[in-house]
Order: sequence, then structure tokens, then C-alpha cells
Amino acid sequence: MRRKHPHARYTTINAVQGLSIEELDYLQDSQSNSIGALLLHLAAVEIGFQIEIFDNRQPNDKELKEWLAAYELGDKGRNEIRGNSLDYYLNKLEQVRARTLKEFGQKNDTWLYEEREWSGLPSNHYFIWFHVFEDEINHRGQIRWLRQRLPKPNTK
Amino acid sequence: MRRKHPHARYTTINAVQGLSIEELDYLQDSQSNSIGALLLHLAAVEIGFQIEIFDNRQPNDKELKEWLAAYELGDKGRNEIRGNSLDYYLNKLEQVRARTLKEFGQKNDTWLYEEREWSGLPSNHYFIWFHVFEDEINHRGQIRWLRQRLPKPNTK
Repeated sequence: MRRKHPHARYTTINAVQGLSIEELDYLQDSQSNSIGALLLHLAAVEIGFQIEIFDNRQPNDKELKEWLAAYELGDKGRNEIRGNSLDYYLNKLEQVRARTLKEFGQKNDTWLYEEREWSGLPSNHYFIWFHVFEDEINHRGQIRWLRQRLPKPNTK
Repeated sequence: MRRKHPHARYTTINAVQGLSIEELDYLQDSQSNSIGALLLHLAAVEIGFQIEIFDNRQPNDKELKEWLAAYELGDKGRNEIRGNSLDYYLNKLEQVRARTLKEFGQKNDTWLYEEREWSGLPSNHYFIWFHVFEDEINHRGQIRWLRQRLPKPNTK
């Protein structure tokens, strides 16, 4: 059994339960991202913020090679992210999340409210990480929308 | 000028800037909600939680008449929520939000973490209201998706 998840992640996982590879790859239209690509995007965004916030650096070539398609989505995502099972995506999400939780476990609440510039604007760690989970919720809304329009009858 | 908005609402408003009545009414397919209906849904959810959490009661007939279509969406939403300008929706959102902010202004942080049953499960005010804004972010993701697929060229 996977461990219990915090709320946003729990709802994401619920939104994709039981999807086949074909369904995870399905493109609603020529501009659409697949549900699989959106799942990997969630992990890529989280990796990106780990590198920026915990490691204080830019992604290196290896990381870009692994994550850029999922981060950028679009044509690159449609071409490169295909053929993976739901477990593949859920495992990626869990592996990435494990580091975030480990890092959070070493911080205190003062760290959350420390001022930290983000995209050239004043911010703090709380808001930066809120944004990561906000992005997940935003895409979960799209995943639900896409799932309801899958061509097969096993949507729910 | 409208007042400055907290982050989730700010991003919602950004997602709909400049939309015409026709665009707000547009239905992507027979099961789709219009962007206008999704905006009114955000206000309806917030009203619903105001009534439950601040007033400790169920919605009355007048409130149900005004808000049920927006709360439930689906066929009822598609039939009843049409022909309104963007300002109509933004004003509704702002009017509803004004009460939430006023009520929040009269609470302290202890109130946030007070235990409160919600849908038969243990919860607290913080989580209940987080859920309201989480729902907004979820639908903002759908609004962005729908906007990119409007039939006219003024999507952005």
C-alpha cells in the first residue's frame, strides 16, 4: 500500500485511478496534453522547485533531459511522454514527493515565512510551495475534465 | 478599480480578462460548462459555505432559487446561466467574497484550527475554507483549458 497522501495529492490520485496506458496517452485534440503528461508535469514542477529552493541552483543537463518535456508540455510533451502505465507516473510522483517531505521535515515554521525572491518578486517559502500545490490542483481540474471525455465507457 | 485580490482569485480574474458574453456562454461540447457558469459556480460554492459555516444552517428557498443552477452546473447550469457580461460575474464574485473577508476579519487564528465536522468527517475551519479556494483553483484550470479552445482568435 502507498502511504496516506496529503489532500491535494490524494485528490489527484483519485482523479486518475484505473486509467489504462491508452487512456493516459489519449489526446483530446491537437493542442491537448494527455493525462499522463499532466501527471508527469506535476512531478517536473516539483523537481524544478526542489532544485531552485533546496539546492539553490539551475537544473543541469541531465535533469533537463529527463524533465524538460514534462515541464514544458506542448509538442515536446505530446511526442515524448507516451506509453507509460499509471504506476509509472504514480511512482515518479511519489519519488519526487519523498524528497520534498524529507526537506520539509528538516525545516521549521520560521523557514516557511522567510522572505525569498521568486521570479524577481518578493515572496516566501510558504507561498512558493503553495504555488507548487496550487499548480497541481489546477491541473487536476483539467485531468477531471479530460477523463470525463475519454472515448471509452470506463470514465467515472 | 477593484481592490487587490488574494492570489487564487487574482489568477481566476486573469484567466477570464476580456471575455465577451458570447465567449462566456460558449459550450465546448454537450457536457461542458461555460466559463460564465464556472465563474458563477465559484460564487455559489462560497455562498454555500458561508451559509453552512457562518450561519450554521441549510440554504433557504430564496438562496436555492438564486444559486442552485450555479452550484450544481450540468444541464441546469447550461440552461439557466447565459447572457451575462464578465462584469456581472466579477461583481457577483466580489460581493460574495466581501462577506467571507468580513467574517474572517472577526475571527482569530484559533478559530481556524477549531475542530468542525464536515460531511460527517472531522475537519477544521482552515481545511474547510482551503477546500473552497482549492475548488476555485481546480475550476480555474478548466477555465484556462476552455479559453484556449474558444472559437475566436482573441484567446491568449
